[in-house]
Amino acid sequence: MKIITIALLAAGIAAPASAQTAPAKPLEMPAKTLNPPTADISPGMQEIIARPLNPDWNFHAKTGEEWRAKADAIAAGVTPGLPAMLDRLHVKMEASTIDGVRVHVLTPDDMPAANRDKTIIHMHGGCYVYFPGESGTTEGIMMAGFGHYRVISVDYRMPPEAYFPAAVDDGITVYKSVLKSSDPKKVGIVGTSAGGALTLEMVVKAKQDGLPMPGAIAPGTPMSDITKTGDSFYTNEFVDNVLVSPKGFCDDAAAFYAHGHDLKDPLLSPVYADMGGFPPTILTTGTRDQLLSNTVRVHRKLRRAGVEADLNVYEGESHAQYQFDDTVPEAKEAFGDIAAFFGKHLGQ
Amino acid sequence: MKIITIALLAAGIAAPASAQTAPAKPLEMPAKTLNPPTADISPGMQEIIARPLNPDWNFHAKTGEEWRAKADAIAAGVTPGLPAMLDRLHVKMEASTIDGVRVHVLTPDDMPAANRDKTIIHMHGGCYVYFPGESGTTEGIMMAGFGHYRVISVDYRMPPEAYFPAAVDDGITVYKSVLKSSDPKKVGIVGTSAGGALTLEMVVKAKQDGLPMPGAIAPGTPMSDITKTGDSFYTNEFVDNVLVSPKGFCDDAAAFYAHGHDLKDPLLSPVYADMGGFPPTILTTGTRDQLLSNTVRVHRKLRRAGVEADLNVYEGESHAQYQFDDTVPEAKEAFGDIAAFFGKHLGQ
Repeated sequence: MKIITIALLAAGIAAPASAQTAPAKPLEMPAKTLNPPTADISPGMQEIIARPLNPDWNFHAKTGEEWRAKADAIAAGVTPGLPAMLDRLHVKMEASTIDGVRVHVLTPDDMPAANRDKTIIHMHGGCYVYFPGESGTTEGIMMAGFGHYRVISVDYRMPPEAYFPAAVDDGITVYKSVLKSSDPKKVGIVGTSAGGALTLEMVVKAKQDGLPMPGAIAPGTPMSDITKTGDSFYTNEFVDNVLVSPKGFCDDAAAFYAHGHDLKDPLLSPVYADMGGFPPTILTTGTRDQLLSNTVRVHRKLRRAGVEADLNVYEGESHAQYQFDDTVPEAKEAFGDIAAFFGKHLGQ
Repeated sequence: MKIITIALLAAGIAAPASAQTAPAKPLEMPAKTLNPPTADISPGMQEIIARPLNPDWNFHAKTGEEWRAKADAIAAGVTPGLPAMLDRLHVKMEASTIDGVRVHVLTPDDMPAANRDKTIIHMHGGCYVYFPGESGTTEGIMMAGFGHYRVISVDYRMPPEAYFPAAVDDGITVYKSVLKSSDPKKVGIVGTSAGGALTLEMVVKAKQDGLPMPGAIAPGTPMSDITKTGDSFYTNEFVDNVLVSPKGFCDDAAAFYAHGHDLKDPLLSPVYADMGGFPPTILTTGTRDQLLSNTVRVHRKLRRAGVEADLNVYEGESHAQYQFDDTVPEAKEAFGDIAAFFGKHLGQ
């Protein structure tokens, strides 16, 4: 009988509730050689997926100054590419401040009439330590260029300049300023990784402070849980070529930003938030993503709370790769889906 | 410069198109010990997820009779549980035939007025060889009981009784019969695994034969590609405790059913179909599923074809586990989402 009931597992149908088996034991998974996937993936994205493990995955700075030095070195590799990217996507960038918060305003040349009274706030990624200044605008440029919306990309404070809750506070400062001249339903928020977490954290904070909800949000592969919880941290360890491992740089950097604060606070790990009343949400991730689980956990929690929530999972992609390169079709596709979702919900 | 551009990978932001690196090399993944996940998972589903590898994963029959003997042994473990399941879900089951095809008609005690002129056709799973007769009705019972729709579960022909294209043909026979007394827009199709593939294959076949499209479909973790293509076959090998490996029983059984026919035929591997004109589709899978990739590939192909397509991915679940046990909350949730999707689209 036991073999028969276990055999049920073999074929994708319901086992009666009585077919309970042995208690939980860890699964021993043998070593594997993984070839890069190619089916239904563009050549440009195939190249991104096939890259070797990020050689900096195990970088661990000891001080805010060390994180900042690394951030500046990375930024120096990004900013020279920005003028060409702005050209390609027909977007203009202007540095400014809003109530003391540094921002870059990104305006597409082509903005349909229906989008002109809408504003998208962009919170960049980088584990709360990377992509200061202009280097944090790339995803915002894609949102403006592919989505044809005006985007305010927030250059929020990071260590060593400031620690938790500086990043979410800076986002909220910009949100409150936008609300002075805009219906909240006409405001969207977008971001990936730490920016995806900050997108959710801004909604948590808005709820706490009694602010109105934005019209829609687009957290991409959000760092929704920085307590090293989430199954794909482990199943996709050494599979994801970007973050690589929960023991890597990224969760370490997030904890550094938290600065001793409880990592389970929904303003740091928003998967623990009460998501009732959240605005319509579109989430994006990839099958090899370390944060696949922490994206789908948010998706399910939103649906369980009765929130409209859409999910896109890209074949073979590791963490955040849908927004690594604006010239691959999957980037245009991802931001096209996000823009369509904003188009459906903003102002409604 | 190379280190800097690779470092971009580290933090989830766009790399300029110029940041191309080394050619594709396989990824060497070390052995791991995986603990069963628990966060945001019900205790009942935790138990299902924590089960040891399906001991029959590497079963390979040589003849149709051997597959059938195994199928009968598995069925003998399922059918004794059906009366209690029908009671729990308040569903009545009646065996019948429709134009020569064996079916079970599943009628919920509670059927809202809006659902009374709707019909859901259910195609069961089991790799085209398992779950003959009543043993194939469990998912149909959940659809009827949780969704409050009348369900016709198709007991399609399988080896050794018949081979490709018998299963899809039997589904189409039932569909054509239902269309004699129903608006096609009021018909939905649901199925998991091989049943998910058959759901898609029926739409492919309906397109080929010039039949009208159904109102909506719900392919769960479809065997959409039986050519062993799909990245999660490899990333989730020995992680998925149900199918375990692309070298296991399931793809072998599907190839046996194909009976020498081209495995890339969209009536066997529907991911290769032209999906233009498909009806609204809701897909379901899990993060540990061998067919995670072949679910999201279908999702993306549908969206790229302009079809409304919804995706639910369950944390930590292996292949088809959302419909293993009607008493765990995730089963009610999955079929609740499917029923809501049908409610939104059928008759529209």
